[in-house]
Amino acid sequence: MVKVGIIGFGYWGTNLVRNFNLASNCRVIAVADPRAERLIQLGRLYSHIKGYKESEELICSKDIDAVIIATPVSTHFELAKRALLQGKHVLLEKPMTSSVMEAEFLIDLAKQKGLLLMVDHTFLYTGAVAKMKQLKDLGDLGNIKYLDSTRINLGLFQPDINVLWDLAPHDISILNYIIDEKPHSVNATGITHTSNDIENIAYLTINYNSGFIAHFSCSWTSPVKLRTMLIGGDQKMILYNDLEPTEKVKVYDSGYNHSKDQDKKKILVDYRTGDIHVPKLNTNEALLEMANDFVSCILEGKEPKSSSKIGLEVVKILEASDKSIKHSGREVILDIQSEEIHQSSNLLTN
Amino acid sequence: MVKVGIIGFGYWGTNLVRNFNLASNCRVIAVADPRAERLIQLGRLYSHIKGYKESEELICSKDIDAVIIATPVSTHFELAKRALLQGKHVLLEKPMTSSVMEAEFLIDLAKQKGLLLMVDHTFLYTGAVAKMKQLKDLGDLGNIKYLDSTRINLGLFQPDINVLWDLAPHDISILNYIIDEKPHSVNATGITHTSNDIENIAYLTINYNSGFIAHFSCSWTSPVKLRTMLIGGDQKMILYNDLEPTEKVKVYDSGYNHSKDQDKKKILVDYRTGDIHVPKLNTNEALLEMANDFVSCILEGKEPKSSSKIGLEVVKILEASDKSIKHSGREVILDIQSEEIHQSSNLLTN
Amino acid sequence: MVKVGIIGFGYWGTNLVRNFNLASNCRVIAVADPRAERLIQLGRLYSHIKGYKESEELICSKDIDAVIIATPVSTHFELAKRALLQGKHVLLEKPMTSSVMEAEFLIDLAKQKGLLLMVDHTFLYTGAVAKMKQLKDLGDLGNIKYLDSTRINLGLFQPDINVLWDLAPHDISILNYIIDEKPHSVNATGITHTSNDIENIAYLTINYNSGFIAHFSCSWTSPVKLRTMLIGGDQKMILYNDLEPTEKVKVYDSGYNHSKDQDKKKILVDYRTGDIHVPKLNTNEALLEMANDFVSCILEGKEPKSSSKIGLEVVKILEASDKSIKHSGREVILDIQSEEIHQSSNLLTN
Amino acid sequence: MVKVGIIGFGYWGTNLVRNFNLASNCRVIAVADPRAERLIQLGRLYSHIKGYKESEELICSKDIDAVIIATPVSTHFELAKRALLQGKHVLLEKPMTSSVMEAEFLIDLAKQKGLLLMVDHTFLYTGAVAKMKQLKDLGDLGNIKYLDSTRINLGLFQPDINVLWDLAPHDISILNYIIDEKPHSVNATGITHTSNDIENIAYLTINYNSGFIAHFSCSWTSPVKLRTMLIGGDQKMILYNDLEPTEKVKVYDSGYNHSKDQDKKKILVDYRTGDIHVPKLNTNEALLEMANDFVSCILEGKEPKSSSKIGLEVVKILEASDKSIKHSGREVILDIQSEEIHQSSNLLTN
Repeated sequence: MVKVGIIGFGYWGTNLVRNFNLASNCRVIAVADPRAERLIQLGRLYSHIKGYKESEELICSKDIDAVIIATPVSTHFELAKRALLQGKHVLLEKPMTSSVMEAEFLIDLAKQKGLLLMVDHTFLYTGAVAKMKQLKDLGDLGNIKYLDSTRINLGLFQPDINVLWDLAPHDISILNYIIDEKPHSVNATGITHTSNDIENIAYLTINYNSGFIAHFSCSWTSPVKLRTMLIGGDQKMILYNDLEPTEKVKVYDSGYNHSKDQDKKKILVDYRTGDIHVPKLNTNEALLEMANDFVSCILEGKEPKSSSKIGLEVVKILEASDKSIKHSGREVILDIQSEEIHQSSNLLTN
Repeated sequence: MVKVGIIGFGYWGTNLVRNFNLASNCRVIAVADPRAERLIQLGRLYSHIKGYKESEELICSKDIDAVIIATPVSTHFELAKRALLQGKHVLLEKPMTSSVMEAEFLIDLAKQKGLLLMVDHTFLYTGAVAKMKQLKDLGDLGNIKYLDSTRINLGLFQPDINVLWDLAPHDISILNYIIDEKPHSVNATGITHTSNDIENIAYLTINYNSGFIAHFSCSWTSPVKLRTMLIGGDQKMILYNDLEPTEKVKVYDSGYNHSKDQDKKKILVDYRTGDIHVPKLNTNEALLEMANDFVSCILEGKEPKSSSKIGLEVVKILEASDKSIKHSGREVILDIQSEEIHQSSNLLTN
Repeated sequence: MVKVGIIGFGYWGTNLVRNFNLASNCRVIAVADPRAERLIQLGRLYSHIKGYKESEELICSKDIDAVIIATPVSTHFELAKRALLQGKHVLLEKPMTSSVMEAEFLIDLAKQKGLLLMVDHTFLYTGAVAKMKQLKDLGDLGNIKYLDSTRINLGLFQPDINVLWDLAPHDISILNYIIDEKPHSVNATGITHTSNDIENIAYLTINYNSGFIAHFSCSWTSPVKLRTMLIGGDQKMILYNDLEPTEKVKVYDSGYNHSKDQDKKKILVDYRTGDIHVPKLNTNEALLEMANDFVSCILEGKEPKSSSKIGLEVVKILEASDKSIKHSGREVILDIQSEEIHQSSNLLTN
Repeated sequence: MVKVGIIGFGYWGTNLVRNFNLASNCRVIAVADPRAERLIQLGRLYSHIKGYKESEELICSKDIDAVIIATPVSTHFELAKRALLQGKHVLLEKPMTSSVMEAEFLIDLAKQKGLLLMVDHTFLYTGAVAKMKQLKDLGDLGNIKYLDSTRINLGLFQPDINVLWDLAPHDISILNYIIDEKPHSVNATGITHTSNDIENIAYLTINYNSGFIAHFSCSWTSPVKLRTMLIGGDQKMILYNDLEPTEKVKVYDSGYNHSKDQDKKKILVDYRTGDIHVPKLNTNEALLEMANDFVSCILEGKEPKSSSKIGLEVVKILEASDKSIKHSGREVILDIQSEEIHQSSNLLTN
């Protein structure tokens, strides 16, 4: 039995409490939130769960084995560090941290302490993503050439992070989960339409040495809500529309081949369009599957599907995208990024 | 009565003959195409139209007032130059030319000769674009913040131009027609999945000094066909879906305002979502409207809606996008581009 | 403060408890369900609500002012009768009863006792239906000519009532709420594909003296889920798609006029298609609005929106549809139906 | 080489000329239309085709082997009879004739004369219908339980036939082509909103002895255009949406089984929802395939896919639907209908 405490009882925290209550071998013991009205609401809904005003009290509680952190990103590092130092397993909401340095520091600390550090990239637990991963692993798609994601809607401007940090983690985690190749570099452009410097529209391209390319379009200012992803192989292609009630994943038996016409020095491209297949998907609630993965990985010492490694890769790309936006869209090589890791050992003394 | 000759009797040339036949004050006199089977087909369909194997003969024909050029882009400049030198009005298919230098040379030459030089950006003559232009000019949209275009499908790899030169001219011409502000710079990234160097997927961002941003996503390798454009103002927003049979333009009474919360140093953003309006559109055939514009501008000495100025602006952006792609997505300032204009006077002697 | 007891803690009963808990001036005191596992689940979720195995105990409880009946239709009459006789206000799930006689008996009894008898036709409390009612009342639609409803999906065969009794009450209640004219007659056809006599596909036409016509298509065996309704006036027409997340109601500025060409003895029909308007709708939860209506009508002695009168009209049409199906689709006049009412006084002695 | 003459050069006649021009082993020799402006248009488009003002001249022309009749339904019988008597093969537009008697008379006459009599139910030549027929014939659907068709739009009120005679022939011909069982009876209801007696909205149910049921919903007064058909088997189900550009036929691996629970005397129904398959369809133009079928059946003495037998079955159902509408929706048995056949011998002397 894993006894968990949850820091942050806002919209997402409420979902977390509900699902960890339903998870196997797990009990929600405590919730911390500085807002009095949230604790009152907690008491009304779950009279048996202890409410703390101070997250520090929850972190230090002897009754708790694991801490779940559902607070603004800027607070993730400090809360997770303290929890790990108190010997607690930690689940962080996405994105994992505000910087690569912080993420790598936490990974090192968890390893050193023998504790589980996991990041909640919920989409990895959906039936749609499981099916796309399976199709890729079976080789049905052929050589994968591109991934193109659009995640736009109206509203929910975040006060502390830009639209890429807010919306792209979902799609970048899916990319990292499905595609094995290491990204080479990123280009990003964006714009802010408010008087702060937080982009509300941004575009991100991730470049790979093999010729695979990934592109992400994110906006808080679209009149329509879209959540679509195209994954194109040379054998088959996928359209993933998360807003479709039942036909979320469509597999197109479409592809193309090219050959060189030696005389005319032209590229000849052959098309093939065929049947479309819409597989039935597992419809279990993804958040509950994530909660069960967290609990069972603690109990069995396994690596979770939504690992801190994927969490780190997401932060690496987001950090590089910030740099590219600041430099007017120029290419930022990701290997150079990772050399900054070695400076992270200083953070513990902060 | 304007007597026209059409060079190129492929897919688009066939549409041009049909529509110029229907246009007022106009007669199609001749068609040139080097392919024997195309001239046979011409004879079967239109026994009264003269067919030429050599475009030069058509250009030099005394019976012709205007030459319409529907050939590969790389041939546009030479054919248009010769036609203008022969005193013919010229209509060029999009994109106008392969380079800014060529476009500016032709514009100068037409001006010098007192002839009409027009570019066929057909979309400017659709009911959908007319309605969007009207909504913008009436101020209904408020301050326009972004334009986001997606034009993707499977197939039709061009052998001589990349996917941006092939697909983006439609959307860039709409951008130029609706938005008055001069673009400041472009970023573009792309990838080729064939063994030539012609990108089949590419992304283009156009940056403006006011904070307006335009983004274009183009692909020849999507399993689904999409032709959508979002135009967002702070008062209203438009979703333009060219593939919708009747509801092509949707106007969302949605917007947002932001203000600074002085104490908390936060940006407060207010949302507003309201009714959606789907205006009835003029459903006249755009190509016929374009043909009538060409003919009446010749007869009345007017400037056409789809002017060579817009044609030039489109080529400027495409040329800059090539440069950005070659330099791994770095920003290319458009003003620097235009300084190359002065070298164009040498072209006549080529 | 109205103290309510709820009989039936299945899928819908759970929704009722949640919403009556949130309603103003109301407290859920007790729930009755014969299934032990449901009472255990009740205790886990709501430890303060009393659970009864016998509905009779709940009905007789002195602590309860009103009884909500969420059980199979065949049990509605007996439970409601006993509750009214015990002096409780009653809310019945749809359809109200298994027969017109039963419905009229309950209405008489409630009137005699001075108690509220209401039927939960939840759809009447949706923003979509409120908007359609408003458009009709404002005269925007002109003369209303037809209503055409499709409500089909896969599954949920009911063991005791056919597909019309199961699915059509939603749409018939909307019809009754929006249209003032009394229906004249019904035709219905249907088929059963199981070995009982319960139709799983059925079609219902309701005829009106004015020429207005309403048609309902219901199925439990469609591979796709549809919930659409067309309402056509001679000025404007509505498409109501309950499965659309935001664009549930579309108002088409389309209509037609006809006139007689006296010489040719032909009818000339003029069409008009115009703009489409998608009004923003109230998105409050309908079930909560229904709960608040029930409570405030008890407290203030008002007539609810979803009255027993509408409940009765729905049952009249369903009963007539049974008769029509039994007689191979022949027309069943509704006035003849209502003459059977006078036999209802005997029921009390049953 | 079959030499054809076409009577009627309206919208559909124009399509017929274009496609018979493209058909193999066929030449369009003449067109007849009483409207002077149509003959002028014919001359402009096809200077080599002879234009007749009088259809009688075309029918009697020695140069013509086959007559295609694209005129109002009320004229079909007389024109076809005269053409057959002149020894010409005949293609009739749908619906074949105004009555069963007329249709049977023509079938007898053609048989007697050894001539081809065919009805143009164009939809039978589409890739979508071919695929549905194939799926049914392979047994993939299991036992077919229902067919449900909706064909509605705004406009095109016919002056001489009601909406069932205008729109339902397409879907009834598909039904007849796919389903082998003989229909038992029909029920139909409808309403007219103009001052003539021609229904503009109508509903038709066709009943079969096996429990299979077919339903057709037709309207000229819908603000939206729909052309959908559901075909449900107990193994798989089809959604056919003719307005989808590419995904016209979707095959759902969904079905249900039922068994009797002997103790509880209840029917237990099991559902199964699975993958969806969207087969690639033949995209040849259906009208051209129909033209080629007509020509090759003349040359080779074969029976066409869209035979006069299917044409007759369609008229039988339409005639019965008229009778049902006139009798307020009562069931009309189709066998009784067919006894009227024997009176048809008198028609020749009319």
